[in-house]
Amino acid sequence: MIGRLNHIAIAVPNLESASSTYKKMFGATVSKEQSLPEHGVRVVFVELSNTKIELITPLTKSSPINSFLKQHKKGGIHHICYEVEDIYKARDHLLSEKATVIGENDPQIGAHGKPVIFLHPKDFDGTLIELQQTSKIKGNEVK
Amino acid sequence: MIGRLNHIAIAVPNLESASSTYKKMFGATVSKEQSLPEHGVRVVFVELSNTKIELITPLTKSSPINSFLKQHKKGGIHHICYEVEDIYKARDHLLSEKATVIGENDPQIGAHGKPVIFLHPKDFDGTLIELQQTSKIKGNEVK
Repeated sequence: MIGRLNHIAIAVPNLESASSTYKKMFGATVSKEQSLPEHGVRVVFVELSNTKIELITPLTKSSPINSFLKQHKKGGIHHICYEVEDIYKARDHLLSEKATVIGENDPQIGAHGKPVIFLHPKDFDGTLIELQQTSKIKGNEVK
Repeated sequence: MIGRLNHIAIAVPNLESASSTYKKMFGATVSKEQSLPEHGVRVVFVELSNTKIELITPLTKSSPINSFLKQHKKGGIHHICYEVEDIYKARDHLLSEKATVIGENDPQIGAHGKPVIFLHPKDFDGTLIELQQTSKIKGNEVK
């Protein structure tokens, strides 16, 4: 079921400084900043040849990244995201294995415009895991 | 300079249980367990199509993973590893940019038999970063 590693998300207190670090220290290609008001974050993507790093910082006070940064003042790895072909099939299997989906059990549209779910770290050795469907449009997306 | 994401290392309190979770929850291909006494760890690799997840647990009391698990009892993401073509060139550039290499400045032979350095999280938004040379044998490796 599990597919590619889509991205690693690193929460950072200062997006400009973090982008600059990846450029200067590693000579990395870093995307332009994007604001995602519906997710309460600003992001840039560090492009690697096989995956990407998402540097995220809060856009609003209610951003979920704010509480993470209160606990990890210097920033840190927030979550990792795996791709799955069918998010509903993946969710049903995970629920049958007693995994805990965070928030609504129904997939939400994630930061990349594709349906996602988040799995509680307690079931995955302290790792917050996002599952993202590979395709934007599928018949069962309109369930 | 920065190349592929080689792996994400997740420290886990129970390697058998973590391997089983990745198999059962995600249908993942998980390697056989390896003991690496020179690094004080036991590991398995979760094979993804574009990279791998390294699940690591302490083999010895002096293992560096023990102190991490004291702070993160349920486990957590320990480090991420990027590939570089020339570890000495990468190190020299990073030192010139005032990054802090952990331990010896000289690369050590890492868990995959290739020269590696570790970069202090304080310079990278709380993220412990391993750099691993892509090739095992290079002229400058015997410096």
